[in-house]
Amino acid sequence: MAKEKIELVIPTIRRLPTYLYKLKLLSSDGIETISTVQLAKMCALNPIVVKKDIAHTKVKGKPKVGHNVNEIIAAIEEFLGWHNRSDAFIVGMGDLGKALTKYSGFDNYGLRIIAGFDSDQSLVGGSIGGVKVFDIDELHGLISRLKIEMLILTVPAKVAQKIAEIAVSAGVRGIWNFTPTKLHLPDNIIVQKVDIAAELAVLSAKLFHSSEEEQSE
Amino acid sequence: MAKEKIELVIPTIRRLPTYLYKLKLLSSDGIETISTVQLAKMCALNPIVVKKDIAHTKVKGKPKVGHNVNEIIAAIEEFLGWHNRSDAFIVGMGDLGKALTKYSGFDNYGLRIIAGFDSDQSLVGGSIGGVKVFDIDELHGLISRLKIEMLILTVPAKVAQKIAEIAVSAGVRGIWNFTPTKLHLPDNIIVQKVDIAAELAVLSAKLFHSSEEEQSE
Repeated sequence: MAKEKIELVIPTIRRLPTYLYKLKLLSSDGIETISTVQLAKMCALNPIVVKKDIAHTKVKGKPKVGHNVNEIIAAIEEFLGWHNRSDAFIVGMGDLGKALTKYSGFDNYGLRIIAGFDSDQSLVGGSIGGVKVFDIDELHGLISRLKIEMLILTVPAKVAQKIAEIAVSAGVRGIWNFTPTKLHLPDNIIVQKVDIAAELAVLSAKLFHSSEEEQSE
Repeated sequence: MAKEKIELVIPTIRRLPTYLYKLKLLSSDGIETISTVQLAKMCALNPIVVKKDIAHTKVKGKPKVGHNVNEIIAAIEEFLGWHNRSDAFIVGMGDLGKALTKYSGFDNYGLRIIAGFDSDQSLVGGSIGGVKVFDIDELHGLISRLKIEMLILTVPAKVAQKIAEIAVSAGVRGIWNFTPTKLHLPDNIIVQKVDIAAELAVLSAKLFHSSEEEQSE
């Protein structure tokens, strides 16, 4: 049976975790309803943007009353696939790998890091933030045995492609790529790149050109 | 004298570091000229996109010959403000702070982290990746004394706003915000937020909705 195809609007998706964070605070304070205008104010966003974003999740509000807080939370989590908690592996237990593994916030976002991998034998067998570290040679076997679909990649740039290929051949479908390497993988593999250099470029270009403007005034 | 106002196109700016990375590899291999079509191929991007991006930097190519590699490198670095190396402070020397401080790649991007700050007295006085760690109480004084304009913020969410305000009052103009806190600062302060939860949202939404499509086929 043909299912309604959901359009993925990236800027909307990027804002949804912000709403979720605020809505969960409201929910834990016992607040039951909220209007999109109030939510917009809490998130310092344009109410029209918030209204459209929330509409994407297909949740229905009541005129004059607003939305039920727990219903929007559930709708956003469903839309993002966060109602099904994903188990993920992380490969590369350097400082960034450690930082991500210890970061408790992912739990709120339906992601649970259940094992780490590294080639450094001084780390293998130990644990970081409660997560056990395995030898990189066990990556393929454990992905296929535990049917892991999501991999977090924090290895050195030069081995990123190789590790990604091993993971994909074992069954991984989504890779969160924190390395500077552009991965070449089959089209059905979803790669989300966290591009630190690109973020820095935006900041420094804005900073540079804003000081140029000041000097030319 | 009125200066030509440069339009900052964010997607273009985000791609420029990729070109720079490839061009520097070419330059170190002794390659002198390249066409935008070749560059596009190396970066796995649409040639029209690359042509437009490069045009933004105002560098001129020669018909049939292409661009001089070192000229495009210089033009991109100038456009991004990376020909003037910026000195930055980093506040919060937890795992993420350590990872960023030790990351040698920023040097290629005109950013030099010259001091770290933390409230943890066991870190103060020590150094991480060759960068000395100071007490957070010295942040205001050192920013104004050294005329630091860029701050990297990797502190816990609940103190982010306070630290940002201290830094801005001392003269910081650009903040690279790695915390989940949305900072409320004067309009002339440039904030670039690295939103880990938003990146994860995009990945998991794509992964979730792609598996829905497969199941409905």
